[in-house]
Amino acid sequence: MSAAEAVSQEPPLAMICGGGSLPLSVADSVAARGRKVLLFPLRGFAKPADFAGREHRWVHLGQFGTVARIARDNGCRDIVCLGSVVRPSLWQLRPDLFTLKVLPQVAKAFRGGDNHLLTSVGRVIESYGFRFLGAQEVAPEILVRQGTLGRAVPSERDRADMALGFDYLGAAGPFDVGQAVVVANRHVLAVEAAEGTDQMLARVAQLRASGRIRASGAGVLVKAAKPKQDRRFDLPSIGPSTIEGAARAGLAGVAVAAGETVIAEPERLVAAADAAGIFVIGEPAGISQ
Amino acid sequence: MSAAEAVSQEPPLAMICGGGSLPLSVADSVAARGRKVLLFPLRGFAKPADFAGREHRWVHLGQFGTVARIARDNGCRDIVCLGSVVRPSLWQLRPDLFTLKVLPQVAKAFRGGDNHLLTSVGRVIESYGFRFLGAQEVAPEILVRQGTLGRAVPSERDRADMALGFDYLGAAGPFDVGQAVVVANRHVLAVEAAEGTDQMLARVAQLRASGRIRASGAGVLVKAAKPKQDRRFDLPSIGPSTIEGAARAGLAGVAVAAGETVIAEPERLVAAADAAGIFVIGEPAGISQ
Repeated sequence: MSAAEAVSQEPPLAMICGGGSLPLSVADSVAARGRKVLLFPLRGFAKPADFAGREHRWVHLGQFGTVARIARDNGCRDIVCLGSVVRPSLWQLRPDLFTLKVLPQVAKAFRGGDNHLLTSVGRVIESYGFRFLGAQEVAPEILVRQGTLGRAVPSERDRADMALGFDYLGAAGPFDVGQAVVVANRHVLAVEAAEGTDQMLARVAQLRASGRIRASGAGVLVKAAKPKQDRRFDLPSIGPSTIEGAARAGLAGVAVAAGETVIAEPERLVAAADAAGIFVIGEPAGISQ
Repeated sequence: MSAAEAVSQEPPLAMICGGGSLPLSVADSVAARGRKVLLFPLRGFAKPADFAGREHRWVHLGQFGTVARIARDNGCRDIVCLGSVVRPSLWQLRPDLFTLKVLPQVAKAFRGGDNHLLTSVGRVIESYGFRFLGAQEVAPEILVRQGTLGRAVPSERDRADMALGFDYLGAAGPFDVGQAVVVANRHVLAVEAAEGTDQMLARVAQLRASGRIRASGAGVLVKAAKPKQDRRFDLPSIGPSTIEGAARAGLAGVAVAAGETVIAEPERLVAAADAAGIFVIGEPAGISQ
């Protein structure tokens, strides 16, 4: 029996999909390995057009009972959650009966930071008897590897900015804040918190346009996982839109923690980076810890 | 000889004034103590209307030779720099001949963080033979004291948010980043870097309007001096506009480090806070260090 056949005998994988192109990349990777995938796009977060050509079942955030039933009926034992889910308001949760039982636990999670929330959701999934896996466990090729991804390489100045950025994220990580920072000329220009990476990059573009940042072409977006982050749930990710945002912000490049950052649409990302002359690099994760 | 007369015999104080109402508050405090003040509003940062009724001399950022000459001619020995100066582009500096001599030093400062820049400017002033003082040294009443300033008081939840905010600023301080953070329900919503407190508050208001922040009425703006900050130059400050921004962001209150935060227009600030039902509190600075 070949390895490929062994893989194909794994039970189907259930994927709960938030926004962005990452869930589809991972679904394709898993399917290419011969494993069946059940897609559960989240209403209000996933884009309907993305799922038009695929078998799927829409669910609301909080309707985990529906996911659990369908997954069990299909012999699933593993569940992956992937894609962006902007921190929801409680009214956006439409709990089903099963979820209602665990809702107090989820509601409690909402009072803490993001890590706290995500870990709690993981616990809910496991309380239903499923294994809760990280996307990188079912499709390891989605992780950024060490080294540059496109043609451009960081300068000495960029390397100093990267190091400061990773240090900063290491220091701020215990506070369960964002995973990204923009550093230019050894000066922290922007720190991501609730607004997300795209909005932070837009802010830097605006600061630059208004003349409050000098030295065009300088600066690095640095992303890293939080020290305490549940790596099964919400690894930092980059995709073509990250590169476009970095280009609009006038940055020289993007540096991420290798082995713990997920990349969506790598070919399009590299093409965008090369077109913009922006470097993309995976750094040993140790330097941020 | 009375104490007031002794004070009035001090040589005039030179004040280089950036934007905002703080320089004028301080100038009035110093004048009320019987000390003459020479005002040097910075073109592009200070508002002409604010100086209409006062003796003053406009200068460009970098024209320190002019300031030094006039200050010396008037017998000044002490210089205070106060008010907001958005980090300038190099082209905004219009150096005079005297400043040109020290410009390489200033240019070098631009490559580091804000603290680095400010410390270097202080060194330039001292290299001209002046004493470089903090505004709090000439008008100690501008510092926020411990305790609440208006009628509203923080709840237990607000106190937990405040503690987290001060801890975060303590951890991020060594990186020479901003001095402010917004925390709600033990969740860091926004971190200030190059954009300044007002823009950060506007971002929180926007996140709230778009439904990305739940729990209206919750959240605290926390400000503290950076651990390494040169306290003569750029203490964190609050004024009526801070309260207005916090109200628009739906926050419950504003917490600052007592004894190392400067308050502009305290009466208007307290009136605005009471009108908005927002608490304003000075906390022992130790908790952020």
